[in-house]
Amino acid sequence: MIDYSAFYATLTRGMERSLIREFLKMARKDSLISFAGGFPDPATFPIAELQEVTREVLATNAALALQYGPTEGDPALRDELVTWMAKDGITVKPENVLVTTGSQQALDLVGKAFLNPGDAIVLELPSYLGGLQAFRTYGADLLGVPQDDDGIDADLLAQTLTRLRREGRRPKFLYVVPDFQNPSGITWTRERRERLLALAREFGTLVVEDNPYREMRFAGKAPPPIIALDPDGRTIYLSTFSKTLAPGLRIGWIAGPEPIISQCVTAKQAMDLCGPAFTQAIVAGLLRRGDLLRRLPGVVAIYRRKCEVMLEALAREMPEGVRWTHPEGGLFLWVTLPEGLDAGALLWPAVEEEGIAYVPGVAFHADGSGRNTMRLNFSYPSEDEIREGIARLARLIRRRAPERTAQHVHTIHRRGTGVSD
Amino acid sequence: MIDYSAFYATLTRGMERSLIREFLKMARKDSLISFAGGFPDPATFPIAELQEVTREVLATNAALALQYGPTEGDPALRDELVTWMAKDGITVKPENVLVTTGSQQALDLVGKAFLNPGDAIVLELPSYLGGLQAFRTYGADLLGVPQDDDGIDADLLAQTLTRLRREGRRPKFLYVVPDFQNPSGITWTRERRERLLALAREFGTLVVEDNPYREMRFAGKAPPPIIALDPDGRTIYLSTFSKTLAPGLRIGWIAGPEPIISQCVTAKQAMDLCGPAFTQAIVAGLLRRGDLLRRLPGVVAIYRRKCEVMLEALAREMPEGVRWTHPEGGLFLWVTLPEGLDAGALLWPAVEEEGIAYVPGVAFHADGSGRNTMRLNFSYPSEDEIREGIARLARLIRRRAPERTAQHVHTIHRRGTGVSD
Repeated sequence: MIDYSAFYATLTRGMERSLIREFLKMARKDSLISFAGGFPDPATFPIAELQEVTREVLATNAALALQYGPTEGDPALRDELVTWMAKDGITVKPENVLVTTGSQQALDLVGKAFLNPGDAIVLELPSYLGGLQAFRTYGADLLGVPQDDDGIDADLLAQTLTRLRREGRRPKFLYVVPDFQNPSGITWTRERRERLLALAREFGTLVVEDNPYREMRFAGKAPPPIIALDPDGRTIYLSTFSKTLAPGLRIGWIAGPEPIISQCVTAKQAMDLCGPAFTQAIVAGLLRRGDLLRRLPGVVAIYRRKCEVMLEALAREMPEGVRWTHPEGGLFLWVTLPEGLDAGALLWPAVEEEGIAYVPGVAFHADGSGRNTMRLNFSYPSEDEIREGIARLARLIRRRAPERTAQHVHTIHRRGTGVSD
Repeated sequence: MIDYSAFYATLTRGMERSLIREFLKMARKDSLISFAGGFPDPATFPIAELQEVTREVLATNAALALQYGPTEGDPALRDELVTWMAKDGITVKPENVLVTTGSQQALDLVGKAFLNPGDAIVLELPSYLGGLQAFRTYGADLLGVPQDDDGIDADLLAQTLTRLRREGRRPKFLYVVPDFQNPSGITWTRERRERLLALAREFGTLVVEDNPYREMRFAGKAPPPIIALDPDGRTIYLSTFSKTLAPGLRIGWIAGPEPIISQCVTAKQAMDLCGPAFTQAIVAGLLRRGDLLRRLPGVVAIYRRKCEVMLEALAREMPEGVRWTHPEGGLFLWVTLPEGLDAGALLWPAVEEEGIAYVPGVAFHADGSGRNTMRLNFSYPSEDEIREGIARLARLIRRRAPERTAQHVHTIHRRGTGVSD
């Protein structure tokens, strides 16, 4: 028997599989009520429009749509993406845009283009798990900075950058998710966005703005994207149609300064030559017809309602001492258990005894903190499943930690936006 | 102005764009006759079948086909791939299969899973450009071994492995393209395949068998794939539907020992979470219906005919001293100019003065040799374009090197299979 592990690369040898990805498999198989993944609701998928556009693409454009395409993406799609971003005040040209396989490939590309082993990057505590995973495979040193309700703590960020400068290190970039952050649900104020850019300028670094949830706003007014506030060209913007259209087409993109796009295109050539021209032509067609923008209010209404159902269930079911966020958008709620309760240790009992799943918050913390937190997704389960699943979760928490849930009420730390009282 | 290049990763900073990829862009825009890319003929695309299957997928399976899927790929597609490979004597289970974005992502994944900077890998001279590029982004040390008409020179391979052993180095794998190699067109004999496996066993290393052209056989009998001859589980097999179906769906795959597949799945999570479930469901449907196998003889007939047209044109047009291969399959011819003529230096005149393109052979040589060679693709241009393009190429060669083409006739080295006389 060959010991294959002796051949593995150092950086990927010890990688752990994403719990979320493992749950995706379960969710396909079982009757588990899963709050774990970030699955959109299939009811939001524009199936009739996809039938029409796909038929048209194959009837009129098959020779190009089934062929190898440019590494940077279908020219028609790049044009449409320029228009799509303009609605948020982002002014770019097609040359500033690179199409990717979901925004996860955008994260991987940014890692490949920028990161040497040991390079520092600074990010939020907690941060997006897929970002952590992508950057770790390049051996990056991930430095977390806590957030409050308004976004990253700019004073602590300045301290971190100052400390790095004293050590002679300049972070390659600051990685942030400013709108309905996954996992915390926090949305940064305009002031925090401006302070981030000022600090990036002062310390001579770049900003990677990951913004997959921006369109999923239930209430309130959206601050501008960071890239729209940046006069220097130091922001790289990542987004995706996984939430506004469907993840199964895997269309994401990078927008940024042309030299950086060019560097990412070169790196992408070695990664997959090009993404599927077929799905790119389809999405370009949907955008040209205006299907996504027209359907967006309906999609947002579904998630607003599901979020309300989850909030009502949490208020009804949860024992004292458990706290959660009230997000203005996105797909997730962030739950904080009383200190001392470990959401990771509760996960397998949750799956086995109650048939529910979530993601332990520690997975999102670059520094291993957040043991008493968890992320709950409300976009995928039905309203009935949300009610039932939250009742089961509350039952589990009561059963596993009856003595703890009544204590600590006055000692827990606030985390995330609009912590429930 | 920010100096973005100061931020780039060392391994990707100096990367060159693939000439081929740059030509892909040109080929979309211009009337250039391109022998450069490896584009299939759009006439081979099963458009009617794709219309039917796509309509069915959206009508009956949209909730899964538009959703995130398992990282390892659509279960139905993995099942179909097991059957597809069985026709070539490859016996694997679905757990041995991982679906990728074309076989280029398979190469990138293998690099990510196995390679540390400085690791040795051994490959053919010349070798597939996409493989060289993928492995270089991980800092691999690429050691080339010459081929003859029967495949890699096994004695020279043994010498290279012995030398590495003396240096205390074990290559992570031997990377080979044994059927209608891109670029040389060489097909390995069964004996060479067995010697490769014996050497891999003796020196304790793995084999990466990249086999995208196997189905494109015009004549003769196919030796078994290397993985089908391997009793040890040391072969990782890569393939794709880019030639047998269409590249625009970007469906490739890896087959190999389950621990290696598992390691690659973990690495792929960080790269793109999963490939498009939509295109995977479509290809699974085409395979289930038997469309690809039924259409294959028609596809092969188109390429057999185009290959004949190019061979006839070469025989008619080329000056003495120019030699080319007579491949039994695949998409490429390999041309050797008289020693001293540089195919790289001829490229821009070819594009600008004659409106034709090809890939200089030096790009495929890990050691920078092969300056007087070029790769010609015959699958994409029409028969008329092939005749016209070869006439232009011959005219250019006569014009640029009139004194050289008559010389060296008796001194050139044989390269590739069935060198023309």
